[in-house]
Amino acid sequence: MSKRQIINLAVGNQFHFMRNFVFLLSFLFVQFVSAQSSAILAARNYATKNADAIIKEFTEFLSLPNVAADPAGQQKNAAFIMAMMNKRGIQKVQLLHPSTAGAVPAVYGEVMVPGAKQTLIFYAHYDGQPVNPTQWAKGLDPFQPKLFSNSIDKDGINILFPADGNYLNEWRIYARGASDDKAGVAAILNAYDAITKNGMAPGCNLKFFFEGEEEAGSTHLNEILEKYKSILQSDLWIICDGPVHQSGQKQIVFGVRGDTHLDLTVYASKRPLHSGHYGNWAPNPAMMLVKLLGSMKDDNGRVTIKGFYDDVTPLTPSEKKALNEVPSVDEQMKKELGISAVEMRGVTLSEAINQPSLNINGIQSGNVGKMASNQIPTYATAVLDLRLVLGNDWKRQQQKVIDHIKAQGYYITNNEPADEERNKYAKIIKVIAGQDGINAQRTSMDLPIIKKVIAAVTTTSKNQLVLQPTMGGSLPLFLFEKYLNAKTVTVPIANHDNNQHAENENIRIGNLFDGIETMVSLMLIK
Amino acid sequence: MSKRQIINLAVGNQFHFMRNFVFLLSFLFVQFVSAQSSAILAARNYATKNADAIIKEFTEFLSLPNVAADPAGQQKNAAFIMAMMNKRGIQKVQLLHPSTAGAVPAVYGEVMVPGAKQTLIFYAHYDGQPVNPTQWAKGLDPFQPKLFSNSIDKDGINILFPADGNYLNEWRIYARGASDDKAGVAAILNAYDAITKNGMAPGCNLKFFFEGEEEAGSTHLNEILEKYKSILQSDLWIICDGPVHQSGQKQIVFGVRGDTHLDLTVYASKRPLHSGHYGNWAPNPAMMLVKLLGSMKDDNGRVTIKGFYDDVTPLTPSEKKALNEVPSVDEQMKKELGISAVEMRGVTLSEAINQPSLNINGIQSGNVGKMASNQIPTYATAVLDLRLVLGNDWKRQQQKVIDHIKAQGYYITNNEPADEERNKYAKIIKVIAGQDGINAQRTSMDLPIIKKVIAAVTTTSKNQLVLQPTMGGSLPLFLFEKYLNAKTVTVPIANHDNNQHAENENIRIGNLFDGIETMVSLMLIK
Repeated sequence: MSKRQIINLAVGNQFHFMRNFVFLLSFLFVQFVSAQSSAILAARNYATKNADAIIKEFTEFLSLPNVAADPAGQQKNAAFIMAMMNKRGIQKVQLLHPSTAGAVPAVYGEVMVPGAKQTLIFYAHYDGQPVNPTQWAKGLDPFQPKLFSNSIDKDGINILFPADGNYLNEWRIYARGASDDKAGVAAILNAYDAITKNGMAPGCNLKFFFEGEEEAGSTHLNEILEKYKSILQSDLWIICDGPVHQSGQKQIVFGVRGDTHLDLTVYASKRPLHSGHYGNWAPNPAMMLVKLLGSMKDDNGRVTIKGFYDDVTPLTPSEKKALNEVPSVDEQMKKELGISAVEMRGVTLSEAINQPSLNINGIQSGNVGKMASNQIPTYATAVLDLRLVLGNDWKRQQQKVIDHIKAQGYYITNNEPADEERNKYAKIIKVIAGQDGINAQRTSMDLPIIKKVIAAVTTTSKNQLVLQPTMGGSLPLFLFEKYLNAKTVTVPIANHDNNQHAENENIRIGNLFDGIETMVSLMLIK
Repeated sequence: MSKRQIINLAVGNQFHFMRNFVFLLSFLFVQFVSAQSSAILAARNYATKNADAIIKEFTEFLSLPNVAADPAGQQKNAAFIMAMMNKRGIQKVQLLHPSTAGAVPAVYGEVMVPGAKQTLIFYAHYDGQPVNPTQWAKGLDPFQPKLFSNSIDKDGINILFPADGNYLNEWRIYARGASDDKAGVAAILNAYDAITKNGMAPGCNLKFFFEGEEEAGSTHLNEILEKYKSILQSDLWIICDGPVHQSGQKQIVFGVRGDTHLDLTVYASKRPLHSGHYGNWAPNPAMMLVKLLGSMKDDNGRVTIKGFYDDVTPLTPSEKKALNEVPSVDEQMKKELGISAVEMRGVTLSEAINQPSLNINGIQSGNVGKMASNQIPTYATAVLDLRLVLGNDWKRQQQKVIDHIKAQGYYITNNEPADEERNKYAKIIKVIAGQDGINAQRTSMDLPIIKKVIAAVTTTSKNQLVLQPTMGGSLPLFLFEKYLNAKTVTVPIANHDNNQHAENENIRIGNLFDGIETMVSLMLIK
């Protein structure tokens, strides 16, 4: 079998025939789309034929440690990307340094297309989450990419990188950053390569922006955007990060949830007490905290805090329609996660993501397991995260929770309570409200440039695209709006079961090559 | 000032005069009690005069490490006690070895008094709680006894052991075991010494039993009691362990609460989830657990579990009367602990101890503080302890909690849930019911021998004794009933703020010498 045949076999014959059928329709009825589709197919073929070189470069990239704790490693990654861009003839390749000395730079490059009417900036990030190699599966090293015949969870086995460059879609490469988000960098730069090596030109001006601090909270992104405002002008940022839909279908995401935190600590006796001598007389901070947290939700998983669901900006008709068309993965996910009921009864996963949420990240008081002792602890603590949707303000949302706590009779402080406070108040809680909250962001699906994006990606997919008004995660996309007055849209490519942020991160080969194709379609937008 | 004067000054002049006044009354109206009082006074004087030797022997004893992890240290302690007994002419001094080879022995000795009608066994334990030296105050070593001018919490400073043997009552000796329970061993053996060195004889046969595994859960006490049943016969065990009343008054305790445990683990998703992608859709085990635990108590601190307060044996009229006369320390303790309200509203500490309790020892899910992350944890766990009073059965009490959990819709397992269980049940909890529960025990205050005990200790106290039907803690006193059909009564001597089981354990000098006097009074019972 030729390389092409193998890839198509893996994509599935159905896909193969279906796509040809789509091409036929395109050809007959929509000449423009058809022309674009042919260009995309040519580029895809180029990528397939050059799989060996693409994967070699990609695994070399994955071998470079890219965690925040290793600045020298980050420098090597940035240099590697600059070399990738130079090799492809991209112009003005440079590091964009934040104004804070020593902070990690972004990597920039651009391609100006004569006569182009629009400019797209492609974003990905080259840094990865911290790694704990001991948690990775046996034989895996986060920075020694390995090829597997399938997901390890699906009994995939370690195989050699094929000498003939024939890769199957279900194969996976395991390494930190494999999907989050070096796959984004690779998909973007190889898409450009695939277009130019086929003698074609992009439909618009292209800019490339690869961040090096995303997993560390994009601490200096604001400085970079402000400092390089003039060269970062565009009509749209394409954020290539995150996973495709759990159904495996391609998706475009138009916004992100916001996020903020509250740290709560309830205080009781100043010293640990013997539960026999004082049990049921002295207050137990763990019991106080569980009653407080329990009061925040009803038995149907709805937050009971006053006004919690107020000031949500309703979805537009387009967004509502898109949401209705999102394929249901609820049953699939329940099975995958080993749960048989959801928290918010009667609400789908897609609907849940479009509502503000309250979640206990952690709770701790005294000791459990072998360390448990017959004591009444002195304090109990919990961390809450509040996810926000459009219309919520993170400070206002925090305040609603604080007001609820007050309404339960608590005296609220932001310090360890002093003796006078202890003597005065029956219920004392320390509330530390996180100061790094971010609000939700959502780009209208009805903008002309967004319609072009949807049309472009649609040509690469046999199935209807999943259009998500909001993704569950929180990214500081508001910074692009704030510093550049720019629009953003997220076009993810990774498989949903990529273990991002955890051990055994991986990218499915099919997703990498589909991702290249997706990026090609966007670069051809006119 | 003479030694006697110093001690009396420290006891307080009021006490001094009050006691003389009590002696006068005794002399006029109750010739027997008066004679006994004179004997006690003589013995007390002996102890005061010999404070130097008593403290020297005591600090040498405290210098011997006595923790479970150090069997060689335990042997040295046992040998030291045998030497103390031999020096005092106590007979049949021997180790009582459990039938389990290598287990820690108890130390035994006896004194048969011609014509005695009764036999009392004096119990104390020579082992101590584990130590973490780094938690002790600066300059303190758990096994290098040091003298302080007062409690460290009350700004006591380290002073030299006085060359002239003049000790003040408020002084404290800091060391592991200083109060729990080497003070018990020292008080008992020095009481015997004080009687015989004054040319007197005990009023009854005396047996001495010093356990070496109390802090390790008295694991082999059953074996010792069974194996040495014949020599351990008595009319009453005097348990010299624990603190006097928080008011500083001497107390006699007639029973202990029982105790049992439940370990609870609520399960949700099999893998940790991103709280943005799944928050409010996927169940949060911490929220499930807080709602479950919160359902177990109402806002007045009453346990809401069905039948929880049933099958409690009511207090007898004597016990009710005694309970009413227990001095209230509630306000004192609230101030000391830094709390301004109690858990069970409208119930005093003494009343609370006479009711079964439910207490959260510890709770844990996900991470808090700097380790917190935006996740939905996979499980949440808590440890509950249930204190029991007379009439409760530990297995039955566990079952009430389990039935309550079931009534909240939980499927209960004692293993990690399998996939089939996860697919079938919305709410899954693992319940591990502790198998080492002990029931409460209470000795009637109306027994003739108990009346003698109360009368004897009364002669040593200017204030009314505190008679506690039940103490808060749980001791395996039921073993004495089970294996020997024996009665027990607890006569503690340590100061209540002795930091037992924790860092900076200490004994107040006044409590040690008052304790000797208390033991003298008991040994003179006829």
